[in-house]
Amino acid sequence: MIIDSHAHLVMPPESFRFMAELIGGRANPNTLPKIPEASVRKAAEELVRSMDKVGTDLQFISPRPYLQMHSVKPGRVTELWSIHCNDLIAQFVQMFPDRFRGVAGLPQYMDEPLEQRAIPELRRCVEQLGFVGCLINPDPTEGLGDPPGLGEPYWHPLYQAMTELDVPGLIHSAGSCSARESYTLKFINEESIAIVSLLGAKTFDAFPKLKIVVAHGGGAIPYQMGRFRAWSVRKGEKETFDQQLRKLYFDTCNYSGESIELLCKVAGTDRVMFGTEKPGTGSARDPLTDRDYDDMKPVIEGIEWLTEAQRRDIFECNCRRVYTRAFDNYTDR
Amino acid sequence: MIIDSHAHLVMPPESFRFMAELIGGRANPNTLPKIPEASVRKAAEELVRSMDKVGTDLQFISPRPYLQMHSVKPGRVTELWSIHCNDLIAQFVQMFPDRFRGVAGLPQYMDEPLEQRAIPELRRCVEQLGFVGCLINPDPTEGLGDPPGLGEPYWHPLYQAMTELDVPGLIHSAGSCSARESYTLKFINEESIAIVSLLGAKTFDAFPKLKIVVAHGGGAIPYQMGRFRAWSVRKGEKETFDQQLRKLYFDTCNYSGESIELLCKVAGTDRVMFGTEKPGTGSARDPLTDRDYDDMKPVIEGIEWLTEAQRRDIFECNCRRVYTRAFDNYTDR
Amino acid sequence: MIIDSHAHLVMPPESFRFMAELIGGRANPNTLPKIPEASVRKAAEELVRSMDKVGTDLQFISPRPYLQMHSVKPGRVTELWSIHCNDLIAQFVQMFPDRFRGVAGLPQYMDEPLEQRAIPELRRCVEQLGFVGCLINPDPTEGLGDPPGLGEPYWHPLYQAMTELDVPGLIHSAGSCSARESYTLKFINEESIAIVSLLGAKTFDAFPKLKIVVAHGGGAIPYQMGRFRAWSVRKGEKETFDQQLRKLYFDTCNYSGESIELLCKVAGTDRVMFGTEKPGTGSARDPLTDRDYDDMKPVIEGIEWLTEAQRRDIFECNCRRVYTRAFDNYTDR
Amino acid sequence: MIIDSHAHLVMPPESFRFMAELIGGRANPNTLPKIPEASVRKAAEELVRSMDKVGTDLQFISPRPYLQMHSVKPGRVTELWSIHCNDLIAQFVQMFPDRFRGVAGLPQYMDEPLEQRAIPELRRCVEQLGFVGCLINPDPTEGLGDPPGLGEPYWHPLYQAMTELDVPGLIHSAGSCSARESYTLKFINEESIAIVSLLGAKTFDAFPKLKIVVAHGGGAIPYQMGRFRAWSVRKGEKETFDQQLRKLYFDTCNYSGESIELLCKVAGTDRVMFGTEKPGTGSARDPLTDRDYDDMKPVIEGIEWLTEAQRRDIFECNCRRVYTRAFDNYTDR
Amino acid sequence: MIIDSHAHLVMPPESFRFMAELIGGRANPNTLPKIPEASVRKAAEELVRSMDKVGTDLQFISPRPYLQMHSVKPGRVTELWSIHCNDLIAQFVQMFPDRFRGVAGLPQYMDEPLEQRAIPELRRCVEQLGFVGCLINPDPTEGLGDPPGLGEPYWHPLYQAMTELDVPGLIHSAGSCSARESYTLKFINEESIAIVSLLGAKTFDAFPKLKIVVAHGGGAIPYQMGRFRAWSVRKGEKETFDQQLRKLYFDTCNYSGESIELLCKVAGTDRVMFGTEKPGTGSARDPLTDRDYDDMKPVIEGIEWLTEAQRRDIFECNCRRVYTRAFDNYTDR
Amino acid sequence: MIIDSHAHLVMPPESFRFMAELIGGRANPNTLPKIPEASVRKAAEELVRSMDKVGTDLQFISPRPYLQMHSVKPGRVTELWSIHCNDLIAQFVQMFPDRFRGVAGLPQYMDEPLEQRAIPELRRCVEQLGFVGCLINPDPTEGLGDPPGLGEPYWHPLYQAMTELDVPGLIHSAGSCSARESYTLKFINEESIAIVSLLGAKTFDAFPKLKIVVAHGGGAIPYQMGRFRAWSVRKGEKETFDQQLRKLYFDTCNYSGESIELLCKVAGTDRVMFGTEKPGTGSARDPLTDRDYDDMKPVIEGIEWLTEAQRRDIFECNCRRVYTRAFDNYTDR
Repeated sequence: MIIDSHAHLVMPPESFRFMAELIGGRANPNTLPKIPEASVRKAAEELVRSMDKVGTDLQFISPRPYLQMHSVKPGRVTELWSIHCNDLIAQFVQMFPDRFRGVAGLPQYMDEPLEQRAIPELRRCVEQLGFVGCLINPDPTEGLGDPPGLGEPYWHPLYQAMTELDVPGLIHSAGSCSARESYTLKFINEESIAIVSLLGAKTFDAFPKLKIVVAHGGGAIPYQMGRFRAWSVRKGEKETFDQQLRKLYFDTCNYSGESIELLCKVAGTDRVMFGTEKPGTGSARDPLTDRDYDDMKPVIEGIEWLTEAQRRDIFECNCRRVYTRAFDNYTDR
Repeated sequence: MIIDSHAHLVMPPESFRFMAELIGGRANPNTLPKIPEASVRKAAEELVRSMDKVGTDLQFISPRPYLQMHSVKPGRVTELWSIHCNDLIAQFVQMFPDRFRGVAGLPQYMDEPLEQRAIPELRRCVEQLGFVGCLINPDPTEGLGDPPGLGEPYWHPLYQAMTELDVPGLIHSAGSCSARESYTLKFINEESIAIVSLLGAKTFDAFPKLKIVVAHGGGAIPYQMGRFRAWSVRKGEKETFDQQLRKLYFDTCNYSGESIELLCKVAGTDRVMFGTEKPGTGSARDPLTDRDYDDMKPVIEGIEWLTEAQRRDIFECNCRRVYTRAFDNYTDR
Repeated sequence: MIIDSHAHLVMPPESFRFMAELIGGRANPNTLPKIPEASVRKAAEELVRSMDKVGTDLQFISPRPYLQMHSVKPGRVTELWSIHCNDLIAQFVQMFPDRFRGVAGLPQYMDEPLEQRAIPELRRCVEQLGFVGCLINPDPTEGLGDPPGLGEPYWHPLYQAMTELDVPGLIHSAGSCSARESYTLKFINEESIAIVSLLGAKTFDAFPKLKIVVAHGGGAIPYQMGRFRAWSVRKGEKETFDQQLRKLYFDTCNYSGESIELLCKVAGTDRVMFGTEKPGTGSARDPLTDRDYDDMKPVIEGIEWLTEAQRRDIFECNCRRVYTRAFDNYTDR
Repeated sequence: MIIDSHAHLVMPPESFRFMAELIGGRANPNTLPKIPEASVRKAAEELVRSMDKVGTDLQFISPRPYLQMHSVKPGRVTELWSIHCNDLIAQFVQMFPDRFRGVAGLPQYMDEPLEQRAIPELRRCVEQLGFVGCLINPDPTEGLGDPPGLGEPYWHPLYQAMTELDVPGLIHSAGSCSARESYTLKFINEESIAIVSLLGAKTFDAFPKLKIVVAHGGGAIPYQMGRFRAWSVRKGEKETFDQQLRKLYFDTCNYSGESIELLCKVAGTDRVMFGTEKPGTGSARDPLTDRDYDDMKPVIEGIEWLTEAQRRDIFECNCRRVYTRAFDNYTDR
Repeated sequence: MIIDSHAHLVMPPESFRFMAELIGGRANPNTLPKIPEASVRKAAEELVRSMDKVGTDLQFISPRPYLQMHSVKPGRVTELWSIHCNDLIAQFVQMFPDRFRGVAGLPQYMDEPLEQRAIPELRRCVEQLGFVGCLINPDPTEGLGDPPGLGEPYWHPLYQAMTELDVPGLIHSAGSCSARESYTLKFINEESIAIVSLLGAKTFDAFPKLKIVVAHGGGAIPYQMGRFRAWSVRKGEKETFDQQLRKLYFDTCNYSGESIELLCKVAGTDRVMFGTEKPGTGSARDPLTDRDYDDMKPVIEGIEWLTEAQRRDIFECNCRRVYTRAFDNYTDR
Repeated sequence: MIIDSHAHLVMPPESFRFMAELIGGRANPNTLPKIPEASVRKAAEELVRSMDKVGTDLQFISPRPYLQMHSVKPGRVTELWSIHCNDLIAQFVQMFPDRFRGVAGLPQYMDEPLEQRAIPELRRCVEQLGFVGCLINPDPTEGLGDPPGLGEPYWHPLYQAMTELDVPGLIHSAGSCSARESYTLKFINEESIAIVSLLGAKTFDAFPKLKIVVAHGGGAIPYQMGRFRAWSVRKGEKETFDQQLRKLYFDTCNYSGESIELLCKVAGTDRVMFGTEKPGTGSARDPLTDRDYDDMKPVIEGIEWLTEAQRRDIFECNCRRVYTRAFDNYTDR
């Protein structure tokens, strides 16, 4: 079974109009749109078709991250939008219960504590809509401010709720208001910052059951291990940096076979899970292979030194171990 | 002939998606969308049908004001969006040359001088696309800052360009980031501020050929004339406030017969032009009349004391006098 | 009996000197002035003479709004000034108990909660000085910031105190630091914002005994009813916007007969009370009538379609119904 | 002849009212008051009487510094106020030409270059009104910002104008918005900063004809000479700090005989000029002497070690040497 | 016995390297340096030699004030630095118990309450390291902000802790980020502000056991007594300003004999204690005396009108009375 | 010959003291230290010894990046510090002309254009001191602001100067004021941002002779190639992202053999040059190899698939090709 642990919602056109109105009206009026079921079904079917084309059995879908509007004033904007996106995801799952699982987007409005909007929405998604995980955006200011690092107490109530609900968090930043740092690059940099902040603050000592997946192969860290190994030795830490890193999970969503090999070596194949973000940034034709960059199943199958068990871990079993709520109420294929 | 001088673009669904991407990606990548002609035609036809339903012969269409994103960082966002909207309008006009005229939206990014993006786009629209007027947003900060009043030198280069090009400006604010002042109310308040600022600064002495239309019946000013008459007397001004007010034009887009009567009395019927913003805020059923609020032709026809000539002025002739470029290259019906 | 529900303190010259020292010294030293009783009496007599000239029996006087210094740092400045002004008003009332009633100005310093200075001063004025109402400035930042709308929880403690004390609030903004929006225009815009915010937040559901009077004929709203009627229908509200509006009271202080007629039609004559702000902005000679703009008794008497009862409501009875504390301890004439 | 080189305008009550309106209306409307000549004359006579009481022959009067409103937004506020105050001073001088000379207050609005308002007003005062000097406020932000030190190029255009016009500048700060630093203490601190900035930047090398008088005995510097002597030695400066200090002038306005003795020793009696700021801060009864603190003629007469020539320098001659324009067109007594 | 109550740590070179790393790394990593005892001893011996040269028996040493980095973000920077400096001081005292006493520097990070870092470090220094006093920096923003005056409640927890621990505080500001106000001048201005704030707020009424020493002879205040005497009379205060001033202590660290004479006259010799800050700003050769400016013992010995008892008070006894913890556990020489 | 293209100054202890004084005094006083030649020589010899230990023949040394203080106010601080560091480097080169070359640190103060301090210092270093390259910090705000991307016109004057002088720039950020992003991680993220900004803006089309070396193996980009390949295809760029990347140079300073292999594959061995930053972050013992992490010669020698020519390119020849000024006046070994 091929589980794509990192994929996003395909939205019906009406959602974009709603988003436009939210931006223009800044949540004024303060209402949710009613989208015809046919539109939603059409979008869901499109996504299923795209999965079928590359052999994905099951996708974990979350809201499109760069459209989360976490920094758009006032906080009600991102809240309405999160609710809307999560509701659409719930519809997808209901329509295709053996093809989708829901991963919640959280209304992390930059100037408010997480308790105000983000955690209630997480609870709603998990408890009422059956979601199995959530996104965590390490920079809700989207580049406009200097947020607390993921190891800081600001985030603890979220970790507390996640462990109570037994859902993992996928580290994935949102938009970027900085002209020099496009959102797609900010994803990468925020993942590096997230790893260093979480490990530096010994967050997993305080929250031993917390489960964190770092998207896109972990930003720069697996490639820059040397720097952090040395830093760790200089700080006199008991655990090596490699040991620390293995408290995290990573996905394969970086569209490069060589890099995934490096990731598997550094983090271990029991810490890497299949993820493609398809359709998304990688949905472009690679002229060398004549496949889309995000058609990554053949890439991983092509890593010769992986054992069959390791490959299965990556494609399926690691994900099952982490997203424990994902398979409770469903028949496995 | 019924000319609706104040109407806005009806957008194809692809435009909303583009807007969403602009917000999420903050003009990164820096490209314009390609929208299928069929989608554009469908939207244009929808608008023509809505005109037919209420008996409008010709609409002057501009971008949807509250979606102009003048305060969304960086300036390239609103520039791409303005170009896109204006290009769509040009397509509408080309498809239905006897039903539409183009009024440009300007990329008035809040932190930049008008010469950087707004005036070049105005020139492009008038000189290359045949547009006949433009919108002017008195608060490009959309409530986040304290912009210079319309009488200040900041705006003079725009007035210079407008008089050179012989196009009027329609005062119409954009979005509102203030939680307490919805965009629809901000429209009204900004119109009041615009009138007081323009008249207070004696702008028409410096730009005697400048033509300004104030949307929505002129904000609060016609209703609050007493206050400004007294203020003017106390300042010892030579012209009465009523005389000053009559340097401006107004449209009827305020959805209330009694108020339009007041407007006509205060400003004079030679200064009022038909405008409905249809479809827009007023596209809701009035339970008293069972017509939409923005179906305003019957409302004006119902003002009994208007002479036929006055009524024709409002429906057609004032508009022709002000929008002089609108009828140069077209056969009048 | 003619009750002018909206009038302001006429200050002795010593008060201006005190204000100047407050600004220069920023409440340093932190003391109140001692003003000779003769000076106060002279100012009070001047005001009585001006009332007599236009036939006003009783005035409700509050501090001069645009001099309230709500945004002048630090908060002690406006507090000292409010106390001074309210104390003067109390002296006026004591000197002429059958000609004046006190309406408190509140030290609404922009960066502080209302509990810190404003509500204690309200209690002092009502409980110790016998005041019968208060001013409410919807923008204590005086244009420098983005305050919470009047429907927001920030204001609830004030509404709680007002209902406990059974005093109405007169919506009236103060100064304006924005160069493009003079204080006199800001009055109007803030009234529009206040109405929309209070009605939008359903404030009167939470505070059913709250009594709010909107000054100057309600800003732009009675003139722009069409817009808000449509908006209300589109939001699917149960009450029409007209019904909602009639939860508020308005005064006639807009110096234009036509507009007051419109106001009476829209809000109902049971919701409109006589108010002139005399002497004030309207104290200038209208060349058409050769009366001051704020000599409004003849204006209202000249509205032919008003019944005698309606006229009495406007001149006296509505005010008596709203300002219930105003007549407890006094013999009515 | 006793010349009090440091005194301020005594204002008629109407001026305070105008100031109050300026603050409230923020220069909106943008007009100057008309004050009855009798009011002005009354104020001038009061000041002359106060001079007679303490034996002052001639006063150099400038606007009341702490009321200059240099930080009140927008710049037009302080400009109107400066013009008003300077015009009053001109009237005083015209009324009592042998008792007064004018020292201009400058509209140093904090966010603008000096060329915009301050220097034009200086030119008007000197060239049209016959003024003989000006005030210089080293902190036009009045504690809200971090202005350039007096040695910085920001100030050079003013020094250029002063030397062209041959007028000295009296260092005297204005109000203080900081709650912890009252304006009266800020005077002292700003004088210290001014001295260190001017000397540190070698301003007198660039403007050898610049004449600067530091009010209130030079802030803390004469008392803290040791610190700056050592600092100067450590920086390896060629001139001693004592030599540098003697490029400045000082006045005696510090209300303490012991301190004035120290000042005379440190700066030299050829650099100290009589100044009392009377009536002002020092107009309070000293219980030890039963004279007002600002009745300083006896204090200086009581310094026994001063020679008669030195005493004359202080009372008269230094002032004549510095304020060269003060005696051109007048008959000396 | 000659006690120099105001002196600072002489640091080993390794401390500067640590400071550089703190600035560069902003407390990242978050560790303290290990400095070889020999380096510390060498620095301590250097300081002892400098004391011997001028005849000082005992020095009270605190961290070098201008290097305290109170405004360097984040707060952990100044905390690590304070701990390091205080630890060094403790080593000095341990090495030369009859030559040194410790006065703690506090990590007063500008954006945090004193309870977070400053008071815990004070307790550590007094209770664990045997310190006898502390520095108080009235402006932890180092010129970047507008801190609460020393009389404000912000500071009360510190005063509470100081009185509980029975330690005095030496008013001494830190660095200065303002280009126009060097740190050495800011010392002086902050002392003036501190005095006026403490006395104005009647702090000693609330904390009668609080002991405050103002460095550098009290800023400008003893020289500017006249101004504050008059101010006090005008405010109608019961205590004269001279009486109020005598609640404070002062040190002689201003390098000028004439000024110290003035200080002794104004504050009284029972309120002045010997202090030189040697080695420091004053460690430069005075060409007139061929002694260093901070070699102040001969200066005080040269004030002829001092009695022997007064001289002993200044050199020793006042300090003993104020720093009561300094002599508990030590044998006096 | 082994050339370490990326190494930093080892500073004498006096430099740290100077840095501390600069921070404390904020360039007040404004002077440079005089450091004994023996101290400098000792530091240089220490560095030579460390080179000998790992077999490095020649080091290109620049100032310690994280100590550059680019965000410390005012700009004179970083200017004095840069001059000091560059002067030390010049001394090192003069003392050991066959072991060192100078790479300039630039005083890139965050709030100023590069023409003010940075470019003059570059010219001084190259033209007067014989330096051969410079550092470029892409974020002179050190995390406090949002600087223009390296492709923006802000940077063009520097590129112009660099090409005129024929010196390459080494992309290397400085300190980090963000608590969540340590300077060592910021290095990595800034390198990724620099690459994407330079390539996205087509900077090398405008400056075809510009030579840029990206430190630490190019941040995250070689590892995240897939993402940017897809992005490039989606933008329809003519050159592939791989082709674009090969316009830059990279160094090996990332302390991980596997990663350097990936870098060589992605960028090509003709674009990679030996660099170790020794001594620096990597100077810690790797427990697996028992060599320091920054002892990287064996690491590169151990990459088996490199040809001898490729290895020589990395160790020496690429560097010679890029740093053309480095070998003009020197005899090659």
